[in-house]
Amino acid sequence: MIINKSNRLHHVKEYYFSSKLKEIRTLIASGKPIINLGIGSPDLAPPKAAIDAIAKAVLDTKNHSYRSYQGIPEFRKAIAQFYNNKFTVDLNPDNEILPLMGSKEGIMHISMAFLNDGDAVLIPNPGYITYTSVAEMLNVKPIYYNLSATTNWLPNFEELEKLDLEKVKIMWLNYPHMPTGAIATEELFKKLIAFAKKHKILLVNDNPYSFVLNEKPLSILALDGAKEVALELNSLSKTFNMAGWRVGMLLGNANYINTVLQVKSNMDSGMFYGIQKGAIAALEMTNGWFTKMNTIYTKRREIVWQILDELHCEYNKNTVGLFVWAKTPNGVNSKLFTDELLYKKDVFITPGTIFGSNSEEYIRVSLCVDEEKLKEVLERIKIA
Amino acid sequence: MIINKSNRLHHVKEYYFSSKLKEIRTLIASGKPIINLGIGSPDLAPPKAAIDAIAKAVLDTKNHSYRSYQGIPEFRKAIAQFYNNKFTVDLNPDNEILPLMGSKEGIMHISMAFLNDGDAVLIPNPGYITYTSVAEMLNVKPIYYNLSATTNWLPNFEELEKLDLEKVKIMWLNYPHMPTGAIATEELFKKLIAFAKKHKILLVNDNPYSFVLNEKPLSILALDGAKEVALELNSLSKTFNMAGWRVGMLLGNANYINTVLQVKSNMDSGMFYGIQKGAIAALEMTNGWFTKMNTIYTKRREIVWQILDELHCEYNKNTVGLFVWAKTPNGVNSKLFTDELLYKKDVFITPGTIFGSNSEEYIRVSLCVDEEKLKEVLERIKIA
Repeated sequence: MIINKSNRLHHVKEYYFSSKLKEIRTLIASGKPIINLGIGSPDLAPPKAAIDAIAKAVLDTKNHSYRSYQGIPEFRKAIAQFYNNKFTVDLNPDNEILPLMGSKEGIMHISMAFLNDGDAVLIPNPGYITYTSVAEMLNVKPIYYNLSATTNWLPNFEELEKLDLEKVKIMWLNYPHMPTGAIATEELFKKLIAFAKKHKILLVNDNPYSFVLNEKPLSILALDGAKEVALELNSLSKTFNMAGWRVGMLLGNANYINTVLQVKSNMDSGMFYGIQKGAIAALEMTNGWFTKMNTIYTKRREIVWQILDELHCEYNKNTVGLFVWAKTPNGVNSKLFTDELLYKKDVFITPGTIFGSNSEEYIRVSLCVDEEKLKEVLERIKIA
Repeated sequence: MIINKSNRLHHVKEYYFSSKLKEIRTLIASGKPIINLGIGSPDLAPPKAAIDAIAKAVLDTKNHSYRSYQGIPEFRKAIAQFYNNKFTVDLNPDNEILPLMGSKEGIMHISMAFLNDGDAVLIPNPGYITYTSVAEMLNVKPIYYNLSATTNWLPNFEELEKLDLEKVKIMWLNYPHMPTGAIATEELFKKLIAFAKKHKILLVNDNPYSFVLNEKPLSILALDGAKEVALELNSLSKTFNMAGWRVGMLLGNANYINTVLQVKSNMDSGMFYGIQKGAIAALEMTNGWFTKMNTIYTKRREIVWQILDELHCEYNKNTVGLFVWAKTPNGVNSKLFTDELLYKKDVFITPGTIFGSNSEEYIRVSLCVDEEKLKEVLERIKIA
């Protein structure tokens, strides 16, 4: 290349998944009957109403031009209604809601909107790796806060207060938590809001798993005073099996939202009209949708628990989300443990190592695999 | 806000269009019959084949999960075929093509991939304002290179060589040029490639207007040695009236493409499957499509020329793209000139001022308005 890549890419590695999936494709090509329990991409179909709505919208030849960065008003109203129904959160559709092409892009947009070179952010360990990659790409220091089974994967405030918080401007939260499936309490969010006010830190709760196997969906924005110090990201990917559609949203105080919009309007453009119409139809689904999905995931989880029992892994049944999180037998390293499963049983499970140093003895099993395949995994593992 | 916005946003202003369009909406709401000749968003329908393809693809319930960052192989093959047919450029679909959600996002992705704090980029004056906004957001210095009517809006190499090029890593090119409609020659591209090699600068040609009213579409990648020093951005927005779909692409050497992919994979996710299927159908359109569109645009342009004659503006008939570029009578300031049209004739035309200091005496008229409305504008202007 005539010029070098940016220094910002020196730390960014290829996604572990990306290289591991290449290996898995090679194994499959060589004839191995691999079953992949690693990926959190819903295999179930989106609501029929969403598909019908996009299929109808694309046929209107007037709907193919540029769209507003903020999305069509009808879409923002549907999001406001959804947040009101599900979380008892009031949002002004005019200025407290920003549709995103997936919540993932929000991590970069929010970071660019508020962070300067040399600032720091608080990131959960274990946690979603994109928080770290984005920080590194912007020359922002990732400061990890520990989560562990002893606190049910909730932050430890004594430890938080001891961190060097001087340069910290954003704290990434992700409840329901990926990969552990832990849920936040109102009490936790209250303490976090007080912590954020005290240290002048913006909280961003990434909430895409709110409705999977979760009896009591909770938004941080439902708490008193939250809008002063907190934003929330949400997404249709997991709730409505629409991961490929790239529909996310950012919610919160109009000033924050407007600042993020300044970034977004210089980086991309508004969402495809047909996708917005499909998203509206999804957001308007009645409770039956959630019950139906959770019935399926409940059955799958039962089998995953049986698999984990056979593997002598420990897990907490009181968790939510698209994954089951489990501790390896005798604390064996999760990469060794999952590689053995891959090579001996043709089953891929994600090792906890990739989510941070606090989860090297854990594994994450996806529920995005049908019962038949899960039963096949169970059979393979029973045959010692 | 509990934290301040990032310094990177201190220079970024609201898009001129954004505030002007608000004013226009207010005028329309007050009953004014405004005709907007300012916006470059195609009003014509996409190819029926593209609409049929997305409508069919969304009905298959298996097509709604995450997609690869690189797009489906079939889509990359269609792009390779298109570039081969239209530009006689050979591209390896495996590693020389990166689908983007619009070419606009490519400007940020490329900048993040190659630029460090304090680097500089060459930006055309006049030119597309996003090159400047993105530079400012990344703390990169925009160095403008002059384009003027005397060189038919092509760069002046004597002037280029006199610029302080030490920190320059990228030169943004945009031929066919927006807003002027100037086209590049093979000779120009050869000289630019030599210039880039000499100064170790990456050329990025933004080529979304290649097929509008253009007899000889040209890609910089068709020139000898181009792949060493040049990337090209293209888009389906203008060529196939699919601006709202957000389908763009980056083309060039595998090393450059892979570096940009490192950025993209940490910022967003792959394109919606249905959109990829629609895009493939568009890329496979036969020559009749281009003829049909250009017949419509030719008729519209005839009327725009008449409007400009009535306004005593000068223009060059030998240009291409979605706009007609014209000089105001007696070099009057274009904001004054267009404001007078807006308030006296209820017609909005974009003033050249927003594209840079070299075009304060120019205006840009969009061809994305039907003949009937253009004739109405002509009538309004004739009635002095």
